[in-house]
Amino acid sequence: MQKTTVASWTVSATRHIDYEILESPNLLDPENPDLAALPYGSQGGGRRLVVIDEAVQGIFGDRIRGYFAARNKDMDYLTLPGGDEHKTLDQVVHVASRLNEIGTRRAGTPPIAIGGGVVQDVVGMAAGLYRRGIPYVRVPTTLLGQIDGSVSAKNGVNFEGHRNRLGTFAPPPRTLIDRTLIATLPRRQISSGMGEIIKMALIKDARLFDLLEAYGPDLLTERLQDTGIRTSAEKPGQECMHRAIAGMAEELQKNLWETDLRRIVDYGHTFSPAVEMRALPEILHGEAVAMGCVFGAVLSARRGILRYGQLERIIKTVRSIGLEPSHPLFGDPEILNDALSETVRHRDNHQHITLLRDVGITTFVDDLTTQEVAGAAATMVSILNGKSPLPDVELELPSNE
Amino acid sequence: MQKTTVASWTVSATRHIDYEILESPNLLDPENPDLAALPYGSQGGGRRLVVIDEAVQGIFGDRIRGYFAARNKDMDYLTLPGGDEHKTLDQVVHVASRLNEIGTRRAGTPPIAIGGGVVQDVVGMAAGLYRRGIPYVRVPTTLLGQIDGSVSAKNGVNFEGHRNRLGTFAPPPRTLIDRTLIATLPRRQISSGMGEIIKMALIKDARLFDLLEAYGPDLLTERLQDTGIRTSAEKPGQECMHRAIAGMAEELQKNLWETDLRRIVDYGHTFSPAVEMRALPEILHGEAVAMGCVFGAVLSARRGILRYGQLERIIKTVRSIGLEPSHPLFGDPEILNDALSETVRHRDNHQHITLLRDVGITTFVDDLTTQEVAGAAATMVSILNGKSPLPDVELELPSNE
Repeated sequence: MQKTTVASWTVSATRHIDYEILESPNLLDPENPDLAALPYGSQGGGRRLVVIDEAVQGIFGDRIRGYFAARNKDMDYLTLPGGDEHKTLDQVVHVASRLNEIGTRRAGTPPIAIGGGVVQDVVGMAAGLYRRGIPYVRVPTTLLGQIDGSVSAKNGVNFEGHRNRLGTFAPPPRTLIDRTLIATLPRRQISSGMGEIIKMALIKDARLFDLLEAYGPDLLTERLQDTGIRTSAEKPGQECMHRAIAGMAEELQKNLWETDLRRIVDYGHTFSPAVEMRALPEILHGEAVAMGCVFGAVLSARRGILRYGQLERIIKTVRSIGLEPSHPLFGDPEILNDALSETVRHRDNHQHITLLRDVGITTFVDDLTTQEVAGAAATMVSILNGKSPLPDVELELPSNE
Repeated sequence: MQKTTVASWTVSATRHIDYEILESPNLLDPENPDLAALPYGSQGGGRRLVVIDEAVQGIFGDRIRGYFAARNKDMDYLTLPGGDEHKTLDQVVHVASRLNEIGTRRAGTPPIAIGGGVVQDVVGMAAGLYRRGIPYVRVPTTLLGQIDGSVSAKNGVNFEGHRNRLGTFAPPPRTLIDRTLIATLPRRQISSGMGEIIKMALIKDARLFDLLEAYGPDLLTERLQDTGIRTSAEKPGQECMHRAIAGMAEELQKNLWETDLRRIVDYGHTFSPAVEMRALPEILHGEAVAMGCVFGAVLSARRGILRYGQLERIIKTVRSIGLEPSHPLFGDPEILNDALSETVRHRDNHQHITLLRDVGITTFVDDLTTQEVAGAAATMVSILNGKSPLPDVELELPSNE
């Protein structure tokens, strides 16, 4: 551009960002100051908004109000519905409007979001846009929110049938995790959260996979509360949660704004968004991710880079934590290839697909063909019908394996 | 939080951001590649959206389409209305919807926004939210956009009667400035842009103020094109633009995300937003800013930190560039004190008001009283009525002046 320009200016700036995820048991005990504390050393005193998930309101609503009353805090309360059909810009506007109404300041009166993923996304996006970004405090109340959303820097809403098409990068300075909040969740909600845990295991943590394989049904029954009779050192629920959070934090930290579009944490998220959006509200996010993980393993096995035995192990473990490994939509090559095109646009014309070489070991590919996708879809139909995914003869693995 | 937490994780990351403002004359000449060029070394080839301001469409619409046709670029066009009443989230959604429709990618197909401040804000916010942020190219077509918006990292829309209440920080990687695009603007549009230039002069650039004082009416008549008969070295239009852009770039660079809420570039923007929003669409942004600058100078003079002679010089120069120094709303203490409260919330419970010690020299105050604001409002009424703002006796300036 040298010849045509007569003057130029460059603005260069560096932003350092830090945010913390704290596990603080008994958050709703008025003796525990964490929930009311400001995430920064900011001046307090103003009115703050507490957004409560409708599902949480029924169970913990009184305790939440009681907590702030006991601590003499001036709070305003708003209840929001969960469910992906409420992950909309209208809900974001609704929250922003309430922030406006109570005179929310630039930093000193951060709202608190207590709820599942949809409520977290909606409040996170409202906070991200309000005054071009104010801090907030995140209190996830689902397993998915506690082990995956808790670490995320992103928020988003669905738009015109596309998952998270609009959103921002705006992590809250503080996320508070209290495992007891998920102790009463329906089994299916726990299974869905396990979908992201198994993803984390597959991409980088063989020990985590071993835990899921060994304790799957127990984790589910105990809602990861470690209430089963074991030696005192054995806390598989806590260990699974900690490993999932630490793994996610490690992956996000090195690429927080996704300047590198090759992300192993996107494993299981290449084909699943389209399936999930089409099946709404039938399939929960973690359920779709688990199927996406199996599909990735099928692609890997069919390429001959993952042993079929490992694929079978993955399918078995997925089932043991109460998840389905397949779905009719994962048997439809047209839907899957559309999903791939969509993901490729999101990855700026690259596939950057994570496949597995083993449990905990990944590789990226950029040469997936529509035929390969169709072949894997056929295997997904076999899996759906309860048949073995094994071909007649196992392919020879390359020697560098 | 030590005692109550059982585990914690921190995510720390640093983001480096660079964006450029290029002055490229004759942007719409098909020989000039700048307008069609991608702002990054990204893969091109996909369809891109060109958003054109309605006002620009009438004048340059055919040339813009001709430019891309001549360069064989596959573009999609969208015309948007300017005017603050269109600075809405609905317009942002409208742009996002079109980005969706044409399959806009993560980086390789950045949209181009050609227009005034409202169109820039709307497209900037849509790009900031789409896929949680895609790059775009900014082509400002107003003086205000070329000397102020061109450097900004911010976008925003008005919300519930509050200026820019929702928005993001998301500067486009490239802004292109072609001074000839403003050569045919109505005089009032030029004056409005001069409002931000005089602000920049008052807060940090006495030489720029001297230029405005010496050439004010000429700059206005010539639309800053330097068409008047002068020595070849004398280009007051270009010099004013360059000084304003450079001054803004310097100020923003050191505090791009406004982590420091003491910003001298907010001079003239403490009381004016409320006045501007109330008077919509009567007062243009730069017009309100100019009044805000005079009001700041009145406060400064009444505090005895700015000589009344300088205040008179400021008022005279404001008038010479076709702007009104006052307005009935600036004579209403109630409106002004409400505006102050609103700004204080935006500055997280601090006033952080920039006042002037001299032309080009500022100071911050945090102890402005409602009585002081009312007194300054009375002076603004005198100014409105064409009377001198001078009190009977000029106050003694402190000796450290």
